[in-house]
Amino acid sequence: MQKDRTPEEWRLDFRSGTVRPTTGIAGGYAQANLLIVTREYALDFASFCQRNPKPCPVLEMGSVGDPYTKLVADCADIRTDIPGYWVYCDGVLVDRVRDIESIWNDDLVWFLLGCSFGFEEALMANGVPVRHIQNKLNCPMYISNIDCLPSGPFCGKMVVSMRAIPGSLVARATVVTSRYSLSHGAPIWIGDPDGLGIEDLSSPDFGDAPVIEAGDVPVFWACGVTAQQVASNAKLPFSIGHAPGHMFITDIPNEQLALGRI
Amino acid sequence: MQKDRTPEEWRLDFRSGTVRPTTGIAGGYAQANLLIVTREYALDFASFCQRNPKPCPVLEMGSVGDPYTKLVADCADIRTDIPGYWVYCDGVLVDRVRDIESIWNDDLVWFLLGCSFGFEEALMANGVPVRHIQNKLNCPMYISNIDCLPSGPFCGKMVVSMRAIPGSLVARATVVTSRYSLSHGAPIWIGDPDGLGIEDLSSPDFGDAPVIEAGDVPVFWACGVTAQQVASNAKLPFSIGHAPGHMFITDIPNEQLALGRI
Repeated sequence: MQKDRTPEEWRLDFRSGTVRPTTGIAGGYAQANLLIVTREYALDFASFCQRNPKPCPVLEMGSVGDPYTKLVADCADIRTDIPGYWVYCDGVLVDRVRDIESIWNDDLVWFLLGCSFGFEEALMANGVPVRHIQNKLNCPMYISNIDCLPSGPFCGKMVVSMRAIPGSLVARATVVTSRYSLSHGAPIWIGDPDGLGIEDLSSPDFGDAPVIEAGDVPVFWACGVTAQQVASNAKLPFSIGHAPGHMFITDIPNEQLALGRI
Repeated sequence: MQKDRTPEEWRLDFRSGTVRPTTGIAGGYAQANLLIVTREYALDFASFCQRNPKPCPVLEMGSVGDPYTKLVADCADIRTDIPGYWVYCDGVLVDRVRDIESIWNDDLVWFLLGCSFGFEEALMANGVPVRHIQNKLNCPMYISNIDCLPSGPFCGKMVVSMRAIPGSLVARATVVTSRYSLSHGAPIWIGDPDGLGIEDLSSPDFGDAPVIEAGDVPVFWACGVTAQQVASNAKLPFSIGHAPGHMFITDIPNEQLALGRI
């Protein structure tokens, strides 16, 4: 097994052309979802995130046309330092590329949104089993019946992730994840999936079917895929996201992110 | 003494023409600072708040041209429901008005930012004395040596508020306020004012001189006046703020705000 690297070493590796998912690497450091929109839609998307902070916690947003990070890393290049990008026109995927140097322009604004890797690490560190990780599967995700608060063209249902947790540990899972407000925070729903309009837990809309053991309770968290869904619904003329599983690796330790705005 | 009213009753009272400071009324409910900018500067200001969440925690922002709140109150009118507005041109105060119905237009975007009233209530409820309230004074505020992270034309030093707290209660004050991340959160500095570049604690830049008792430690929090200062520094062609002390009263109980993004 390859020795793990620092977040900066990984970013430079991606910049030099390496393509690989970021799952399980740069342990301890927060990773982030990417969405890039044109200036015309940036204010509405910033407002969407402000109105829906649980699925869309903003770790950092760029100024118009500026591709360099300041908060999550010192001067990382948003155009090259992620190991894969998906390009969308009118909400439809049109290209999958290694970097976006050739298509970046002065009209673009990027957003990095917190993801669930951080709180999953905290769950495991606190003795809460995470079934999909134990079974080397993707987390099951569902389109819920919760309407996001709309902003301009951005609207749609909230996507939620589910982790099946032993009843005795649900309280612990809730308290632990509540500390990670920039990583989706506490659950938005605990228990009967019907309450979220989910008819069949075994058939998620994204990810793999769940592993549920006897005595487990389904616990649901807001999910960052919500941002991609509402961007897709909005049919933006042009937008860019990270390739699924190919995230931006920040220099921020998850534990520091737990302090959130403290 | 007048019986207290609900937040909505107070807002309707202001809408009908009443002018008065909001200090000490609608107890238990969060109040908010107002800043209104033109569309041209709204994205940069949203980004400024994202980069400086401790002085500038956004409770809600409007869509371009839409004067009605959705999160902090159901359909409050940002143009009339605050008991006093100050209007600025090129960063200079040019008018003080009761409402802004006649100057509102489709190019404006409003921001409501959390204020410190909420955490002061929590401090007192937790047995931490708040000296300026005990002495019926304004809180002392200072321009610190901390540079805010800039965004577009918005830049400047962070304004901090100071509360002198008995040494035995500083830890409690820290933990209690850390829960209120949308009300400036935990202190940004505890102890020697020199570290913030404050030469004379007895001469604040805003508010009244502090009351400090034997055994007290100066404890500093990020302050919402920062937003007004950077807006003034930016010399925006046009902007509007609340009249000092004349805040927006939200429908959100401070305790619920304590949950922040949970």
